[in-house]
Amino acid sequence: MSTPASVTPSSPEGESQGGFNVDRLFLGLLAVFFPLAIASHFFFPGVWTFVLCAVALVPLARLMGEATEVIAHKLGSGLGGLMNASFGNAAELIIALAALRSGHGDVVKASITGAILGNLLLVLGAAILAGGLKYPKQKFNMTAALSGSAIMFLALTAMSIPDLFHSVRGPAADRVLFPMSVAISVILLIVYALSLLFSLRTHSHLYAGEADGEPEEMPVWSTKKATLVLLGATLGVVVVAEFLVHAIEDAIAAFGFTHTFVGVIIIAIIGNAAEHSTAILMALKNKMDLAFNIAFESSKQIALFVAPVLVLVSIPLGQHLTLEFSHMEVLGIAIGTGAATLIALDGESNWLEGVMLLGVYAILGVAFFFIP
Amino acid sequence: MSTPASVTPSSPEGESQGGFNVDRLFLGLLAVFFPLAIASHFFFPGVWTFVLCAVALVPLARLMGEATEVIAHKLGSGLGGLMNASFGNAAELIIALAALRSGHGDVVKASITGAILGNLLLVLGAAILAGGLKYPKQKFNMTAALSGSAIMFLALTAMSIPDLFHSVRGPAADRVLFPMSVAISVILLIVYALSLLFSLRTHSHLYAGEADGEPEEMPVWSTKKATLVLLGATLGVVVVAEFLVHAIEDAIAAFGFTHTFVGVIIIAIIGNAAEHSTAILMALKNKMDLAFNIAFESSKQIALFVAPVLVLVSIPLGQHLTLEFSHMEVLGIAIGTGAATLIALDGESNWLEGVMLLGVYAILGVAFFFIP
Amino acid sequence: MSTPASVTPSSPEGESQGGFNVDRLFLGLLAVFFPLAIASHFFFPGVWTFVLCAVALVPLARLMGEATEVIAHKLGSGLGGLMNASFGNAAELIIALAALRSGHGDVVKASITGAILGNLLLVLGAAILAGGLKYPKQKFNMTAALSGSAIMFLALTAMSIPDLFHSVRGPAADRVLFPMSVAISVILLIVYALSLLFSLRTHSHLYAGEADGEPEEMPVWSTKKATLVLLGATLGVVVVAEFLVHAIEDAIAAFGFTHTFVGVIIIAIIGNAAEHSTAILMALKNKMDLAFNIAFESSKQIALFVAPVLVLVSIPLGQHLTLEFSHMEVLGIAIGTGAATLIALDGESNWLEGVMLLGVYAILGVAFFFIP
Repeated sequence: MSTPASVTPSSPEGESQGGFNVDRLFLGLLAVFFPLAIASHFFFPGVWTFVLCAVALVPLARLMGEATEVIAHKLGSGLGGLMNASFGNAAELIIALAALRSGHGDVVKASITGAILGNLLLVLGAAILAGGLKYPKQKFNMTAALSGSAIMFLALTAMSIPDLFHSVRGPAADRVLFPMSVAISVILLIVYALSLLFSLRTHSHLYAGEADGEPEEMPVWSTKKATLVLLGATLGVVVVAEFLVHAIEDAIAAFGFTHTFVGVIIIAIIGNAAEHSTAILMALKNKMDLAFNIAFESSKQIALFVAPVLVLVSIPLGQHLTLEFSHMEVLGIAIGTGAATLIALDGESNWLEGVMLLGVYAILGVAFFFIP
Repeated sequence: MSTPASVTPSSPEGESQGGFNVDRLFLGLLAVFFPLAIASHFFFPGVWTFVLCAVALVPLARLMGEATEVIAHKLGSGLGGLMNASFGNAAELIIALAALRSGHGDVVKASITGAILGNLLLVLGAAILAGGLKYPKQKFNMTAALSGSAIMFLALTAMSIPDLFHSVRGPAADRVLFPMSVAISVILLIVYALSLLFSLRTHSHLYAGEADGEPEEMPVWSTKKATLVLLGATLGVVVVAEFLVHAIEDAIAAFGFTHTFVGVIIIAIIGNAAEHSTAILMALKNKMDLAFNIAFESSKQIALFVAPVLVLVSIPLGQHLTLEFSHMEVLGIAIGTGAATLIALDGESNWLEGVMLLGVYAILGVAFFFIP
Repeated sequence: MSTPASVTPSSPEGESQGGFNVDRLFLGLLAVFFPLAIASHFFFPGVWTFVLCAVALVPLARLMGEATEVIAHKLGSGLGGLMNASFGNAAELIIALAALRSGHGDVVKASITGAILGNLLLVLGAAILAGGLKYPKQKFNMTAALSGSAIMFLALTAMSIPDLFHSVRGPAADRVLFPMSVAISVILLIVYALSLLFSLRTHSHLYAGEADGEPEEMPVWSTKKATLVLLGATLGVVVVAEFLVHAIEDAIAAFGFTHTFVGVIIIAIIGNAAEHSTAILMALKNKMDLAFNIAFESSKQIALFVAPVLVLVSIPLGQHLTLEFSHMEVLGIAIGTGAATLIALDGESNWLEGVMLLGVYAILGVAFFFIP
């Protein structure tokens, strides 16, 4: 991963080729919607601000992700892996913090649920379907995928306990839910730290194969340029996330969506759009290991890093975010984890399995749409 | 599947052999119980009508299945497959429609649950046990079996959402449950149609091996004879199903059974008796792929075709059947899917695994027996 | 298993080696804590009696287990296997009976839950972690492990039905819960008996490999000495268990623990300490098959033998113990079974998988700690 020989500058192929160019599309989106989103907030605030901010966040999140990857690559596998693991979902974390500070704790939790479901069902399903339309059968490393399943199972355990506790104890549970959530968050962060030790140190060879494909997708930026891009994109995300959060209530009023639907489906899709396109591209190149890795790694970071960090950060913010998710969210995570696991079990995928994951996502979408 | 060379006329072997002959047994049952059931309805209506109709439906359902298979075979793999997929569970569908028209919505839903549990636990368990008593270890194609599991997982998702929704929202959910069920039914039917495209078109080679065994079981009927048998048997099923449904209340009063028990255990066993015997015969011939295929395909047809069709057909009938199943039914489907998946995971079966499935079925039977 | 040639007297190696000696440690514990526990009960009863009895039970349970194994070995594979299967968890059974007679039905059920969770998560997790720190990758027989999963799934079914039934029916269920539990218990015992037939008779060759490792761990006692040790240790367990149960209320008052926590975590750890150390030793010797076998066999014995026997024995005791576990316990068993199954699926283990199991155990520990 860190030997210079394995780095293939991909930009020429990636940017000047005749075919579909994802990076250029994202830059165009940014150039159009970022100024519009800013202008909308000041001159015509309301539901349009929400929509414009949502669209502008997609390329911003992508830029942050790319800059992080370039810097991580230059730092080498140890430090770089650590950086990737911490900043990989920085955009989600910033949006969630903005929502948390404005007291939208429910939307924050819904966006955590939505990001996990989006990765395990929508991203993975679309990638398997797209790849399956091109290749009749695609193989991947079952052991790596099942390891991701096991970690998600741990996350599911963590997210189901407070909900059950509340429904068993009723209002008497309120006092206990926050300390319980803090204790569970600490356990999750410890397991997350150990999982980094595993993938970056003791068992880094297992992940070596995966890195071969990544350089192709990485822009040829100098460290300085990447750092500037990272700073600029982060600043942009921070600003636009604030504006988006301010417009949440207008959007809910205008579209008739529920808070949960906004969090689970809309905000989560914004945060995952970049992973989405990358996973599909990998599947079309028959690199299913990478597609699975994107879906499971991103879910893992949300569940074992972003969620517990938000719980701990909520203490100084005075918001006391708990890990209590709704019944529907817990069932959703259980279903998402189960479906992705079932697909991963035989180490092969075909387009019908992609349809199946998307079908599960659609049914959950119906459910979250109707929930008030 | 459609090349004439592969067709082995099985009737001589199947009918004149010294051993156990399933077809003759079913014809005998029909000759005795069909007239008795009719007579009972008119001359001594009541609990005996229920019992006689129940027994008469078993060979009728079997005849319908056989005639469908013969016609499907002559139509070739494409159209024939479509026919098999649509009429494969026609008997269940007719019984359910009769019950639905008489306002027994609960019994209809219970019979859907029961048919799925019957296939995944009773049919598969009995087949694995029977095969396992003859062979110490039987192998099957794990990938095909797991693909069935994945589809059943989708069905489980569809069946669990309305129940959860109701228990979360209380009476306020009533208004929403029917539109939600319609939306979910449409998703299920789309996935079902795509799964037919998969098995009949894009990946039909995967199922080619399975067809080798089927001709042996198929009667040597001309298309004309098969069509007449199909029409006659369908008419018979329609009549007897009506009589059976009329006698449901008498049976419940006489035996002390609950509505759920009648649907889940009794009606479901009637509808599955034919699959049951075929799956066991396949297992005894060490064709475990076929036994698994019968169990999973039949469950899939019930969950992804019969159930959503009943929901949509309930609109013109003015009955508004929802996909809301009881907690116990949802748990039952979850347990059945999980148990069959666990058994399928290693691609091998032995008699203890059959006992395990039957044990799970027995425990669920106890539960449904006690539920009022 | 029963041929004398395969018996390797291990005592010299096991006891006189320079390294860590488990047997000597346990004997030392016994010599110190058994007299203290007895004295405490009579001279300074209260919370210290609880602690001392708890510690004294660990080596007593171990001695019972070792003596049982020696006698079983001399009896040969048939009768010996039967003896191992019936007395393997005799210590747990005795402690549970003592608690049941004193009317601590909740603690009994909690200790059943705790013993299963302890085996599937703590024992297996610690073994995988310990083995994984020594070997980067350890392989085991996936089929055998999954067979254990399937049996635990049956147990999960049995334990979840009465809880669901109660929450659906409310107080009206009370009348039905005991007969339902008896019916389910009978089914579990039948499956248990058949599973013995499977492992000792029809498929004993599958377990032959496992036996190779056991002689190394077995003390070189004559049948007479083993019988005397078994009688003495059993007597000791009976006495100390009575004293422990008498002190439960004092311990709950002193430590502020809940009844559930005492049962799930403390009593269960006492009963499993011996399995715990053996499984870790096996993992350190790279015999992961044995480590998995210890965890799954012990869980199976608790769920399919100890629990139903306690239900049936409660009839003459007039206590009417049901199989109704709390929501939290049912969720715990479901999570434990799911986690162990996910780890077993690929036939390989590494230290991170051990961490994952221990993380799930820790989260459940947090949950049971907070439940009043």
